[in-house]
Amino acid sequence: MNIRMIAQILGKVLFTIALLLLLPAVVALLYRESPFPFLITVVISAALGGLLSLLKPRNTKIYAREGFVCVGLSWLCISMLGALPFVFSGDIPYYIDALFETASGFTTTGASILPNVEALTMGGLFWRSFTHWIGGMGVLVFIMAVMPMSGSRSMHIMRAEVPGPTVGKLVPSARKTAGILYLIYILLTLLEVILLLCGGMNLYDALIHSFGTAGTGGFSNRAASIGFYSPYNQVVITVFMFLFGVNFNLYFLILVGKVKEALKSEELHVYLSLAALAIIAITLNVLPLYRGFGESLRYSAFQVGSIMSTTGYSTADFNVWPEFSKWILVLLMFTGGCAGSTCGGMKVSRIMILFKGIRQELWRQQHPHGVSVVRLEDKPVTESTLHTTLVFSVCYIGILLLGTLCLSLDGFDLTTNFTGTLACISNIGPGLSVVGPAGNYALFSGWNKLLLSLIMILGRLEIFPLLLLFSPSVWRKQ
Amino acid sequence: MNIRMIAQILGKVLFTIALLLLLPAVVALLYRESPFPFLITVVISAALGGLLSLLKPRNTKIYAREGFVCVGLSWLCISMLGALPFVFSGDIPYYIDALFETASGFTTTGASILPNVEALTMGGLFWRSFTHWIGGMGVLVFIMAVMPMSGSRSMHIMRAEVPGPTVGKLVPSARKTAGILYLIYILLTLLEVILLLCGGMNLYDALIHSFGTAGTGGFSNRAASIGFYSPYNQVVITVFMFLFGVNFNLYFLILVGKVKEALKSEELHVYLSLAALAIIAITLNVLPLYRGFGESLRYSAFQVGSIMSTTGYSTADFNVWPEFSKWILVLLMFTGGCAGSTCGGMKVSRIMILFKGIRQELWRQQHPHGVSVVRLEDKPVTESTLHTTLVFSVCYIGILLLGTLCLSLDGFDLTTNFTGTLACISNIGPGLSVVGPAGNYALFSGWNKLLLSLIMILGRLEIFPLLLLFSPSVWRKQ
Repeated sequence: MNIRMIAQILGKVLFTIALLLLLPAVVALLYRESPFPFLITVVISAALGGLLSLLKPRNTKIYAREGFVCVGLSWLCISMLGALPFVFSGDIPYYIDALFETASGFTTTGASILPNVEALTMGGLFWRSFTHWIGGMGVLVFIMAVMPMSGSRSMHIMRAEVPGPTVGKLVPSARKTAGILYLIYILLTLLEVILLLCGGMNLYDALIHSFGTAGTGGFSNRAASIGFYSPYNQVVITVFMFLFGVNFNLYFLILVGKVKEALKSEELHVYLSLAALAIIAITLNVLPLYRGFGESLRYSAFQVGSIMSTTGYSTADFNVWPEFSKWILVLLMFTGGCAGSTCGGMKVSRIMILFKGIRQELWRQQHPHGVSVVRLEDKPVTESTLHTTLVFSVCYIGILLLGTLCLSLDGFDLTTNFTGTLACISNIGPGLSVVGPAGNYALFSGWNKLLLSLIMILGRLEIFPLLLLFSPSVWRKQ
Repeated sequence: MNIRMIAQILGKVLFTIALLLLLPAVVALLYRESPFPFLITVVISAALGGLLSLLKPRNTKIYAREGFVCVGLSWLCISMLGALPFVFSGDIPYYIDALFETASGFTTTGASILPNVEALTMGGLFWRSFTHWIGGMGVLVFIMAVMPMSGSRSMHIMRAEVPGPTVGKLVPSARKTAGILYLIYILLTLLEVILLLCGGMNLYDALIHSFGTAGTGGFSNRAASIGFYSPYNQVVITVFMFLFGVNFNLYFLILVGKVKEALKSEELHVYLSLAALAIIAITLNVLPLYRGFGESLRYSAFQVGSIMSTTGYSTADFNVWPEFSKWILVLLMFTGGCAGSTCGGMKVSRIMILFKGIRQELWRQQHPHGVSVVRLEDKPVTESTLHTTLVFSVCYIGILLLGTLCLSLDGFDLTTNFTGTLACISNIGPGLSVVGPAGNYALFSGWNKLLLSLIMILGRLEIFPLLLLFSPSVWRKQ
């Protein structure tokens, strides 16, 4: 294990966080609030980063193992450091609560322990939503985009931080790929800000909600979430939630003129079909609750977009919807959006690989000596990708079931524990019952808040990087 | 596809069922009830069996595909025919209800639609519990044990009907293996009957509950289930539930004197450790509800035995236990007992393969070019077994999630729908909430009762045989 090289990269991460923390400090100043909660954290981050940078690596070679450890450690560190401003400002006095809120922010979960979000400082609210935007595309991908790093090194890191069963480069250079991804990300975010401003939202709120949508996070500065805003703005956010659930590679293809190729994506078709099916089913199911088809469609489309993209915003309290609609939302919590987007969840392409894997297995049971290959996007899926996808899914369910067990110690009902854990590992935010859109995670014990913070990071990093961090074999000398 | 050979075997299955139906007819006569509901069904089964036997096969070769289809079709047929006596006698007037109850019987689920079980005829109650005993070891395994059949042919059938990730023969002949399995089954059942008689239970009740324990079914003729009987009988049944959850191969090893080898079984150790852990956790958790540690231990041990062996008997309404205990029971519903037993669920050995598969994957992520092998019971698990186990688990979860979706149309709460589907696919019987030990499945719609019947058979046959039956590729000419 090249520990010095890991320290080196971790140091860069801490410097980056220090730099990014200057932005909420400025916001605080603009609103005549004290910038010190942020500035003290800047100093701490920079100091720690400096200390780590002192460890000069003897060689700069890193492998898959180091990539995973780097990403796992970085995400733990930024969550722990990012929580400090909330404690210093008194916005969230207890550190574990602040940690939960920050992990929820960076992992773009949007689960909250705040009973009254509107009581926070403007600087605090800005930082809370800004973590969504940083975490959405990934802090290490950001560093890759702006700092020089060797190609193979960056790929190990990219593979560990970018969601999806396989990670492809858009252009031969991993660094340029990261840059292009961030460029698309910034452009789409800006477009949303402008459209929200057109709908009469003020700049601050437009930024907050664009951060929340772009990272598919879901933090709002309003207690009523998006239900506070006009139907026009609800529709804008609905559209952008769906847009940020799409694989960014497709936007790259569109940018370079390969529109046809982009629209041929098998994953996109399934993503949109699933969304359409869910919207129709829920619209019809909740029809009696609203005034007519149009209103029912608007609420249904918003919620499906919000859950599939794993954003977690709400315009209605879907906890009071019929059981059928609620379970559709739970199923979509498993699915999530497309690979290579800012979404959480298992990802549509993984679900597709699973379905094709089951079909292949049925064929194999009939032809024990035959050979068959699973194909996705017109390319064969390697045995190893199929295998990893299967193991990943089993881990996902395993963590969900064991997480629910731990949560049940706090005495809440099964629905709360199960959907709460699911909403955290899939980076959604709200679940059902106590943790429904009108509720929050405040009542859980400290241990369970810590556990859920870990589960959110497990979900964001797609399990293996964090699991490897806790596996003794990684730390053993070879 | 050798359809004539399938018809031939199906014919034998129907003759066997006709024969077995004579037993409840005798019981009906003994209790001065009309034997005709059974006798009419005997005639129908025999006639259908005779018709199918008319199709003489041109060759007797069958392959994996035919094995699956045979087993799938047989289980559908025996459930449909076995339901008739309930309708004829008026015990269960609606056919779909009777079908649900019979599928629940044969698959050893023990889920019931009867609000008042004590109102049934003695003959009907006997048949209901006898289906558990028939289904526990499998009707095709029974036919193999008593009729001559070529070796390779029987293995295809055995593989499809005997639960577990892999099926081994005890002795070189598959026919003799089936015979030995049935012998052990009969001996253990008799032993339980005798011990229950010693505890003051009458012969009829002792038979009913031995059938229910041996097949790990869970039908009782008492509304209070095993709670009706003395603590001595509760303990006897607890012990036998655990015994019937053990791989029968181990009993064979003990019979031939290889006790040490039997006790070395890795799966047995994990099975007992999981049970011990669950019992301790639940005992402590429910302590405040009962008078002292002893009583708490007795209730807890009974329930853990009942759920792990997927029997489904109850001595307490565990629906009112704390959430932590309830979720432990839900987790055990996934696990089930050992492979090669009469249990349902995913089986302990599959859970072990999954865990080892995850560990292997973590290792592989660090060593992309390394080679590692998963081992179970000191033997390497083949890549194909590991792959099938992974796909099986994903199917299991998929059916559970989609089944819950269908059930949610009836408007019951999430806990009812989720645990109801789980209790059916794992062949447990009672779930939580509406379908808890004090409730039943009567209130579900006809469609959902049909669906649950299918899910019970899917669970009993471990998914693939029934799924293949509905897959067009099986019926396509090659």
